[in-house]
Amino acid sequence: MASEINTNAPVTLINSFEVPEDRLADAVRSWEQARDFLKEQPGYITTRLHQSLSPQAKFQLVNIALWESPDAYQAAIQKLGKSGIVAEFKGIDFHAALYTVIREDE
Amino acid sequence: MASEINTNAPVTLINSFEVPEDRLADAVRSWEQARDFLKEQPGYITTRLHQSLSPQAKFQLVNIALWESPDAYQAAIQKLGKSGIVAEFKGIDFHAALYTVIREDE
Repeated sequence: MASEINTNAPVTLINSFEVPEDRLADAVRSWEQARDFLKEQPGYITTRLHQSLSPQAKFQLVNIALWESPDAYQAAIQKLGKSGIVAEFKGIDFHAALYTVIREDE
Repeated sequence: MASEINTNAPVTLINSFEVPEDRLADAVRSWEQARDFLKEQPGYITTRLHQSLSPQAKFQLVNIALWESPDAYQAAIQKLGKSGIVAEFKGIDFHAALYTVIREDE
């Protein structure tokens, strides 16, 4: 299990979006604006936006990003919040959390 | 957007688990058994199990795996279902879907 949280180790942000079909293009545009803002912030490593192959999936979009530390991510997200970009995700539920890898192939 | 589904291209499986705190160790053990079964199946590429840093996160565990194609994944999952391993995830809600990457850093 992930016992103590190492506030200096890289972390994985996983953000699952519940997107109504008619809001998909809006959500991707808003994601692009947020990415362009966040990738300039200290501690940003990389990000990938995934789209579900099935229109029935609960989460049509899932963002998976790497950050140098939980603190770097939290600072960047607070700045993003003040930038007003996130406003365009209104009406789109998302579940964002930071993760650490605890098991792999072996 | 991901228009047509290329049934031969690699896909990303993202599976988000809602795990009651007292079932976390069980869920990881069941995940390990499922992984040991699935990694022997044709088309398996790699997998990583992520645990949330926060106990309040909706999804305490998120599995992210790569498969050579949707068909390879579906075939492997059907065999897993017949193997009886999945039974041990009873009482643990999970949201599994296949994804393709539609945006990255640029």
